Order: sequence, then structure tokens, then C-alpha cells
Amino acid sequence: MRSAPFEHRFRVALHDTDAAGVLFFGHLFRHAHDAYEALMAHSGLPLDALIRAAEWHLPLVHAEADYGAPLRHGEQVRVTIEVLELGQRAFTLGYRFALEDGREAARARTVHVCIEAAAGVSRPLPESLRAALAPYRSAASGD
Amino acid sequence: MRSAPFEHRFRVALHDTDAAGVLFFGHLFRHAHDAYEALMAHSGLPLDALIRAAEWHLPLVHAEADYGAPLRHGEQVRVTIEVLELGQRAFTLGYRFALEDGREAARARTVHVCIEAAAGVSRPLPESLRAALAPYRSAASGD
Amino acid sequence: MRSAPFEHRFRVALHDTDAAGVLFFGHLFRHAHDAYEALMAHSGLPLDALIRAAEWHLPLVHAEADYGAPLRHGEQVRVTIEVLELGQRAFTLGYRFALEDGREAARARTVHVCIEAAAGVSRPLPESLRAALAPYRSAASGD
Amino acid sequence: MRSAPFEHRFRVALHDTDAAGVLFFGHLFRHAHDAYEALMAHSGLPLDALIRAAEWHLPLVHAEADYGAPLRHGEQVRVTIEVLELGQRAFTLGYRFALEDGREAARARTVHVCIEAAAGVSRPLPESLRAALAPYRSAASGD
Repeated sequence: MRSAPFEHRFRVALHDTDAAGVLFFGHLFRHAHDAYEALMAHSGLPLDALIRAAEWHLPLVHAEADYGAPLRHGEQVRVTIEVLELGQRAFTLGYRFALEDGREAARARTVHVCIEAAAGVSRPLPESLRAALAPYRSAASGD
Repeated sequence: MRSAPFEHRFRVALHDTDAAGVLFFGHLFRHAHDAYEALMAHSGLPLDALIRAAEWHLPLVHAEADYGAPLRHGEQVRVTIEVLELGQRAFTLGYRFALEDGREAARARTVHVCIEAAAGVSRPLPESLRAALAPYRSAASGD
Repeated sequence: MRSAPFEHRFRVALHDTDAAGVLFFGHLFRHAHDAYEALMAHSGLPLDALIRAAEWHLPLVHAEADYGAPLRHGEQVRVTIEVLELGQRAFTLGYRFALEDGREAARARTVHVCIEAAAGVSRPLPESLRAALAPYRSAASGD
Repeated sequence: MRSAPFEHRFRVALHDTDAAGVLFFGHLFRHAHDAYEALMAHSGLPLDALIRAAEWHLPLVHAEADYGAPLRHGEQVRVTIEVLELGQRAFTLGYRFALEDGREAARARTVHVCIEAAAGVSRPLPESLRAALAPYRSAASGD
């Protein structure tokens, strides 16, 4: 049994667009990261507190996106985010960007590892992090 | 008699900050513009529709900000926006950025003119725009 | 026989970094796109002229990056860009981001299609574009 | 006697522009700061080293810009930067953004103070900083 994906919403701002009239592709990752920050804050592990505590960090080792429909200035976008993989030392988040009419405009995926801040070396995902992410595992994650 | 200033809220995202640990000063203008877009959408004149209609535009001719307290990652910020001046051919918006405890972290000001899109020349502010902005005139605007 | 990859350089600016002290992952795509714009301008097909001509566009349908070493504020970065695939209706660019000591810090890949601007439908890559990209085909592209 | 203003050049990138087709006003400050970073690096006091040394910082307390001609995608821009004021505890930089034909497109101004990093209190500008900035004092600065 699992809960629904986490939701985050934003409106495409003028500064998100470029002279081609639609969201500049690179800015999608800014919005994906906003959704990830919102999920972590909602789960009691806000990224700002993690960065300030400086015990362990969650750097990205991979990011990717597929673009379908263009995202136009003013459009309301619903981001749903799921945990696609929750491994021993890494986790993968999946994001879907949907327009108001429900059409999917884009997908993204980010892969994060865990680093012991002092030593700068990889470490297993802390239990607090596993607990925060577990409710958002996707059906596809096989758990 | 006048209504209260318009409000807009945001949370300082990781990508808003820089290696000095606080919001990069230039990003304040992105958030000021988001507040302006929210006010215009709320007033029935969303900027995206204005840009697509391409009859008249509202380019900025001046922008400025004063920075007090630093804006840290994760901080909840309340932006209040008022119309400081509503002239024949230009208007000035004033923004205050307050932290959760009410302290003012920054102020900004933007000055906009109105341009006939086809001819590219200055024109008086359309009545629809004056009507949209009028409710947000500040006491200091002397009206 | 093929020519060398195209090169583009940048210095990690303060606004590229975040409170974690290194380049925010999403900004890598901004720099990748700058390298792509530089290649296109160098090849006689500057993107700004293409967008203004509005005959055909080259929207991205996929973007991805792998992050190795962190990119720190002030670091000089050399981007090399190659054409990994040059198909009938799409092309793929590959980017490597190297530090001054030669170590690879990141890789990225973008996939672009060609769209007839008026009709909004896919079209074969124009010959002028094929000619502009051909010199940068990678050995791995099998041509 | 004084030397010429410091120069920095950039090309308006696609991601600098917005759906209105020209540089988003807020991004001008990103380019102003790039010019400031280039001046500091050229003067032997690179900002990245100052931030890492964490002895004193130079936060902005004010920023402003006046916009004249629009900056279009692909345009080559020459930024000249001068020290408008070099006080005991603050300095003011002035920036001019010129198009290739020499026309001025925009001006900006930033005011910086000096903060003792440990105590977080204002301190006089260090001598090394005064020496780095002095060559770029404008005629108007009255020195």
C-alpha cells in the first residue's frame, strides 16, 4: 500500500520563458528542485536545515528531462513527484509536469547520493531520510 | 479610502542562494516581478495575456532595491506590493520583503512605461490598466 | 576524418553557485546551451537569427547530465561539444565540462528536433543545419 | 590621473531573454555582477577567494538600473565599470551597457559595504580592497 504522489504547483513566470516564447528547458530543473524541496520540507527534513547541519549531503549525480508540450507564460503547472528507486546509497525521484487540462508537458528524473560531509565520502542513506521518502515510492519501484 | 497592499509569498529556494549562503541580490528582482505578475493576474490583466495580445507593453525603465537583513535558504518571505505613483504615462510599484517575524529584509521599486506595440512609441496608460492598479495605490501616492 | 570538438569556456560565477557552495545542478544546462549557441554562431547559423526568421525551430525533446566533481565558484571550465547523432529529423549534442587540471566534472546531452514554425509539425533537418553540425560529429557517431 | 574603466563583454543568451523577446530586466544584475567579479579577479582579489577566506564580506546594500534600448537575443554587449565612490566603509560601482554600435542600452549602480565575517559587523574597507578598486575611480568620483 502506498500514498499518492506528492504535489507541487507553479505558474510559468515571465522569467521562466525565453525569446522562443516558452519555458527555457533548463528552468524545468529549477522547478523540479522546488518540488523536491517542498516534499522534503513536508516530510520534516527541509533541505535548508540539512545543508546547515552539514552532517550529510544529497548531491545529484544525474538529472534528465523529456519535453513534450511547450510550457507557456502564465500556464498553471502541477508537478507530481514520486520516489522511483530507494536504494542503499542512492535514490531516484521522478517528476511529471501536467498542464491544467491534465496533459503531460514534461517528465524529469533526478538521482541523488548521500555524502558524509566531513569526510566527503559516500555513505548509506540515513534512516530518517528513508522514512521521509518511503511514503512516496511509486508502484513501479517494486516495493 | 484604499485597500490593503497586495500580498505574495515565496520560500527562498536553494537556487535563490549563492555560495555566500544567502539570496543572490539579483534574484530579488525575479521575486519582485513574480509579485507584480500575481497582482496583475489577480486584477484581471495577466501579463501573459498582455504580451500575447501585443497591443501595448509595459517595459521597465528603472528598477532598484535596498537590502537589509539577508534572506536565507528556506526562509518564508511575504512580499507586499503597492502602487507608489500612477501617472499619465508611467507607474511605479513599491515592494517590501518581510521575514516571518515581521522584520523587513529588503525593499524594491520598479518604474514601468507604456508602449504602443506596433509603433514602438510611448502612449498614455490604458484605462483598463489604471483601473487594475488603482486599488493598490499607497497612502504616500497622495491620491 | 573529422575536426576537433567545439570549445567554449566559462568561469563559475557567484550566481551559478548555491548555499551548498557549488554550481546548482540546473545551471549546468544554461552553460551547455551557451556552448550550443556559441557553436551555432560560429557555424554561421546563430540561434537568435533562426528564432527571428521563424521558419523552423529546434526545440529540445530531451536533456540529461551526469555530475562528477563539483564545480566551485571561480573555477575555469572548458566545455567541449560534439554532435553524437545527426539523424534525419533529430540531432544529439554531447557536452563535457572539464576543470583546469583536465579532470572531467560533468557530462551532458541534449536531443533536438526540427519543427516547421508555421504548421508546428516535425520536418527533416534543413541542409544548412546538417552542414553546420557535420564538422562536429563525434567519432562515436559512426560516420 | 586615472586609468580607463574596466571592460567586460557578453552576448545576450537565449536564457537571458523572456517571452517579450528581450533581456529580462532582472538578469541585467547578473551580468553587472559578472563584470564586478571580472574586475575583482583582474585586480588580484577574486570574490571566490574572499568568500572562501571568510574574513570579510562585501554584501550589496543597494542596486539599481535604468533601462534604455532593449537588449535582444544575440546582441554583443560591452559593460564598462567604474568606481563612483570609494568611501571609508562603502563603495559604489557604476556600470554602462553599450551595444555594438556604441549606443548605451542600460546603466546600473551597486553599493557595497564591508562586514567582519566572524562578528557580522560593519568594518572599514581593507587596504587591499581600496588598492584594488582605486585604479577604476571615475572622474566624477572627485578624487
